[in-house]
Amino acid sequence: MYNSLGNILRLTTFGESHGAAIGGVLDGFPAGVELNFDEVEKQLARRKTGQSSLTTSRQEEDKVELLSGIKDGISTGHSIGFLVRNTNQKSDDYSHLEDVFRPSHADFTYQEKYGIRDVRGGGRASARETTNWVIGGTLAKQLIPNIQISSFVSSVEQVIYNYDPHSTDLTQIDSNSVRCPDNEKAKEMIAAIEKAKADGDSVGGTITCVIKNMPIGLGEPIFHKLEAELAKAMLTINACKGFEIGSGFTGASMRGSVHNDIWLEKGKTATNHSGGIQGGISNGMDILFRLAFKPTSTIMQNQATINTKDESITLEGKGRHDPCVLPRAVPIVDALAAFVLADMFLLSKIRKIS
Amino acid sequence: MYNSLGNILRLTTFGESHGAAIGGVLDGFPAGVELNFDEVEKQLARRKTGQSSLTTSRQEEDKVELLSGIKDGISTGHSIGFLVRNTNQKSDDYSHLEDVFRPSHADFTYQEKYGIRDVRGGGRASARETTNWVIGGTLAKQLIPNIQISSFVSSVEQVIYNYDPHSTDLTQIDSNSVRCPDNEKAKEMIAAIEKAKADGDSVGGTITCVIKNMPIGLGEPIFHKLEAELAKAMLTINACKGFEIGSGFTGASMRGSVHNDIWLEKGKTATNHSGGIQGGISNGMDILFRLAFKPTSTIMQNQATINTKDESITLEGKGRHDPCVLPRAVPIVDALAAFVLADMFLLSKIRKIS
Amino acid sequence: MYNSLGNILRLTTFGESHGAAIGGVLDGFPAGVELNFDEVEKQLARRKTGQSSLTTSRQEEDKVELLSGIKDGISTGHSIGFLVRNTNQKSDDYSHLEDVFRPSHADFTYQEKYGIRDVRGGGRASARETTNWVIGGTLAKQLIPNIQISSFVSSVEQVIYNYDPHSTDLTQIDSNSVRCPDNEKAKEMIAAIEKAKADGDSVGGTITCVIKNMPIGLGEPIFHKLEAELAKAMLTINACKGFEIGSGFTGASMRGSVHNDIWLEKGKTATNHSGGIQGGISNGMDILFRLAFKPTSTIMQNQATINTKDESITLEGKGRHDPCVLPRAVPIVDALAAFVLADMFLLSKIRKIS
Amino acid sequence: MYNSLGNILRLTTFGESHGAAIGGVLDGFPAGVELNFDEVEKQLARRKTGQSSLTTSRQEEDKVELLSGIKDGISTGHSIGFLVRNTNQKSDDYSHLEDVFRPSHADFTYQEKYGIRDVRGGGRASARETTNWVIGGTLAKQLIPNIQISSFVSSVEQVIYNYDPHSTDLTQIDSNSVRCPDNEKAKEMIAAIEKAKADGDSVGGTITCVIKNMPIGLGEPIFHKLEAELAKAMLTINACKGFEIGSGFTGASMRGSVHNDIWLEKGKTATNHSGGIQGGISNGMDILFRLAFKPTSTIMQNQATINTKDESITLEGKGRHDPCVLPRAVPIVDALAAFVLADMFLLSKIRKIS
Repeated sequence: MYNSLGNILRLTTFGESHGAAIGGVLDGFPAGVELNFDEVEKQLARRKTGQSSLTTSRQEEDKVELLSGIKDGISTGHSIGFLVRNTNQKSDDYSHLEDVFRPSHADFTYQEKYGIRDVRGGGRASARETTNWVIGGTLAKQLIPNIQISSFVSSVEQVIYNYDPHSTDLTQIDSNSVRCPDNEKAKEMIAAIEKAKADGDSVGGTITCVIKNMPIGLGEPIFHKLEAELAKAMLTINACKGFEIGSGFTGASMRGSVHNDIWLEKGKTATNHSGGIQGGISNGMDILFRLAFKPTSTIMQNQATINTKDESITLEGKGRHDPCVLPRAVPIVDALAAFVLADMFLLSKIRKIS
Repeated sequence: MYNSLGNILRLTTFGESHGAAIGGVLDGFPAGVELNFDEVEKQLARRKTGQSSLTTSRQEEDKVELLSGIKDGISTGHSIGFLVRNTNQKSDDYSHLEDVFRPSHADFTYQEKYGIRDVRGGGRASARETTNWVIGGTLAKQLIPNIQISSFVSSVEQVIYNYDPHSTDLTQIDSNSVRCPDNEKAKEMIAAIEKAKADGDSVGGTITCVIKNMPIGLGEPIFHKLEAELAKAMLTINACKGFEIGSGFTGASMRGSVHNDIWLEKGKTATNHSGGIQGGISNGMDILFRLAFKPTSTIMQNQATINTKDESITLEGKGRHDPCVLPRAVPIVDALAAFVLADMFLLSKIRKIS
Repeated sequence: MYNSLGNILRLTTFGESHGAAIGGVLDGFPAGVELNFDEVEKQLARRKTGQSSLTTSRQEEDKVELLSGIKDGISTGHSIGFLVRNTNQKSDDYSHLEDVFRPSHADFTYQEKYGIRDVRGGGRASARETTNWVIGGTLAKQLIPNIQISSFVSSVEQVIYNYDPHSTDLTQIDSNSVRCPDNEKAKEMIAAIEKAKADGDSVGGTITCVIKNMPIGLGEPIFHKLEAELAKAMLTINACKGFEIGSGFTGASMRGSVHNDIWLEKGKTATNHSGGIQGGISNGMDILFRLAFKPTSTIMQNQATINTKDESITLEGKGRHDPCVLPRAVPIVDALAAFVLADMFLLSKIRKIS
Repeated sequence: MYNSLGNILRLTTFGESHGAAIGGVLDGFPAGVELNFDEVEKQLARRKTGQSSLTTSRQEEDKVELLSGIKDGISTGHSIGFLVRNTNQKSDDYSHLEDVFRPSHADFTYQEKYGIRDVRGGGRASARETTNWVIGGTLAKQLIPNIQISSFVSSVEQVIYNYDPHSTDLTQIDSNSVRCPDNEKAKEMIAAIEKAKADGDSVGGTITCVIKNMPIGLGEPIFHKLEAELAKAMLTINACKGFEIGSGFTGASMRGSVHNDIWLEKGKTATNHSGGIQGGISNGMDILFRLAFKPTSTIMQNQATINTKDESITLEGKGRHDPCVLPRAVPIVDALAAFVLADMFLLSKIRKIS
């Protein structure tokens, strides 16, 4: 339950992969904001299937209907309902999965928890849900227009691209199909994905998110620390298995004298091991976090597994799936980061009497 | 705001390091549970300062008063208020920090966000708050008595101890002061901490948490995935900079054919790269997660920084502080993990009509 | 903001009277419930416009689309999205209201609060929203099939029908167009409404709700008392101006020796001045509450008012409106009562360890 | 569960009548507010027992400890923990009630819901909890210093005093022990209470609340209408059985042409049948609501009832109790109204981009 994200700004979603529609309600959105719908379409196109050889060939239309809360392109302060009809589903694709628990999927846990599940396309567990997040997050972004959020693929399998605040050109993220700002590394990543695809296999990787032009003061000090809110949002992404902020796991092997970020002036430190957050609250430096994504569970190889009768069976690899979800996850990370920041931005407006 | 953790079970806390008291309210706790208060004392003793040479010499008394919601040792179903008086504070210790923004502390962000801050002992930002979490989490644990939660220090600075499900003896965690189940590695870790202490420096490290005897079906599929709830709770710990579940960041460089956890029978997989959670819901395997902790920000060396007038100054290293927070963070991780699981356990009871 | 009702079961809604659609998300609904969609249609038909001479002639289609969370007619435990397209709107009806603040409408307050408003059909303030509540509440009712909820019109203007637990025949509520179980009184009520209509005027009245077969133990003792939850839900109904439980305002003039409900046996008292709730929790007796509804604000007479420039003007009476909202409010009261009870029912399942 | 009131501003409470202490946490309170603690003491004194011949002789000390969230008398933006120790309890007073279900008390429902209850002084059901509300509400009031909230006793048993906006002198509320602004009516009310007391009986009555100097725009349009939030808060008061806003139940017998509040200018209407709220949002006129209170359940007469074995018994009337709770309920109504308004005030600050 509680298909809702956010504290003050709240996104509530619904929908299964092969149901009639997916959609949601964006609530708590202030009145008076001129909305940019092209930006919503643009971000959805980045998330879409079938955009390159790296992604599944399922063609989703993703035609968004914004049903309420907007007048003449301006938010009215009322809840914004939205809807995307599901089309191009091939439900018969899934008949062979009715009694099967696929490895590393949600099949078994859904069945046990609910006693009933919609096997078609993974039902509610499908990444199709992330369409809702891109819609909600891209609208939320419009509450914080000055903040720049840039996510990109920083590794695929063994190919690693390290972010460098001085040399990385964040404007180049969309210049290649894998969404790595370095075109040379991107080629290696694409090669790794295509190799895995040829093998009927899948690969994981990492996404790095850089947030610039941050206002000071976002985040709440105890249970709604900015990094905790970001971690929670990111760990909702289906294949995401890890989150680190600033120095992250690398910082765990450092000493304090090296790790401490020396203040040069208000809002500016010499290093940024803190990743832009101290005491749960943004300090004005760039926010930096990195996410681990496991390889896609669906592969085009035969695998051993069990069925609902607890019998050992062999699962054949077939269907339409991404060998690597990373490129399409980039706009999802952007959207969820925007959502968290917009929520914390609204909260921050009522924390001090002035 | 929102000093509350949890959905159905809710812990709301208050208190500053050097205020009159810290405490909180544990709400949503069912009636009829016989409470083990000794366990609360035991876990608080594990979190306490002054327990070994590795921790700060500040002597906190941590005398818990449970003020309501309990009759003859049994929960009544009403909110449980609790309180720990602050004693042994030395407020004059902090006078020199009134106008200073210490590196990598919450000083600057609190001042900017609120325009006012309690400089003594870090005020609300102090790790003293974690006492509240240990109390709330240890009570919550008693709702899920069969689940075994074992956290331990898995690295300090460069000294690494890798968990092995077959050889690691989780009963040995408290057999040494650093709380690593391997006594040889523990000695190396202690040496690393004492070396840093002698240098007036601090060190970071990692904590691994292993949760055994998990019921199937805890966690909600979209925005309250079990890993997302755990990540959020863990990232609230003051020095925590990273969270990974199952294969985590290592999984990002793997292929699906290797990473997939093959089902052997219901609730049992050949490998456990999923870390016991699939589709946001526990699958019956052990839950495994790992946390990165940065080195403590307070060090006993002089550091450059700025004051509230934005002037460059030198901060002298003095006071009472832990050179490494990891050993004392172990019971905090245990407590927060218990809290999240108990919350999700209660939620799971109303998700299916039977 | 917060277009959400409920604690554990949560209904989040959206939509304006003349927008593309209204709808919502019902979240927290347990898996495994066989849903009766005919009942939803039936209750919507009771709420519909154009059903008798007493109601507005606007013909709403109210075709519900249930978009998710259901498989083969059974709830899956996932959020249930739903939608009703708006049809038969006559937007040009409202052009003359663009700059006007109608008396006792939400025009002025919406304009001041948001700086923008959708004038067509009252926008978000329209009673069209109550369609969402009937859908959500009628689904929620299916979680508590044994509880019998019967609301009826107990007064219209000066015509009063007093509920009598012995003689009132609750099966007769729908036997007349005003929804009063006494057909003689119903005729008088209908006459009063038609007289007002002929005068271009409107009338108020009261609705009484009787809830039978109540389980003991619903409601929470402090801030979620059952009567408080009911009051809150009922006061959300657009024209509702008062709520009383049990003896209500009459009880205020009584003495304790007369008012006290003497226990005859467990779950049965000699009188029921408490209205079935003691200490915020249901005691097994019938729940009885009564609601006051003001007369509809829209009347077919000229009225003085102001425009957005603060100038005095005369507002002409025209358009399509109900002279009395009471008959159509009956299913709304039923639905909201069901929603509150279902929410409290789910909560009650995790309040005691057994 | 959920011993919490409020959306943005949140009061979470705990405590039983005869436990160690009562208290709570006030969360979401903005930083930078200079707090008036004398006002808290003053309002607590108005709520206190033993203040006149009309109230119980139990002498509560009500010594408030504010434990956190305040520095030098100014709010820091962090959660404010507070505590009142229970003193002067006579626990042996209650031994005879261990196995008894008193008429119209929470004894039976608590026992059934939780299977365990603290019989001393009513435990959590005691009106002692309202001390927490007065503390929280009086602090909340300081966020909205310009709003004037005046509650008073408007009837006791059959003695009625009608509020008149022109002649009622709200400065006279505390000029007599019953808290009615008309001293002549007050004498009659006091006589009625003393007569009931002499008879070993109790009486009910009504409280009217007038809120002046209201800002326009407080309240949310759908499920958090200002009247719904007020109704919910008021129905949490232990003996409260009814709530009406503006014309309330009287309005139910009126016609629209009479009931409509004609706009004279922005924020000013000719009549105020709406009670200062339209579409759920404050319109700038005074807020007017009225509450029904049943007579106290505890009387000094013998009554028939049952025990926990379902046997008929006779309950003797003894102990210390108020024959009429109305005078002491006045500051509680003030406090809860303030809390709701402060919560809605904070919410209103983030509903429009300006």
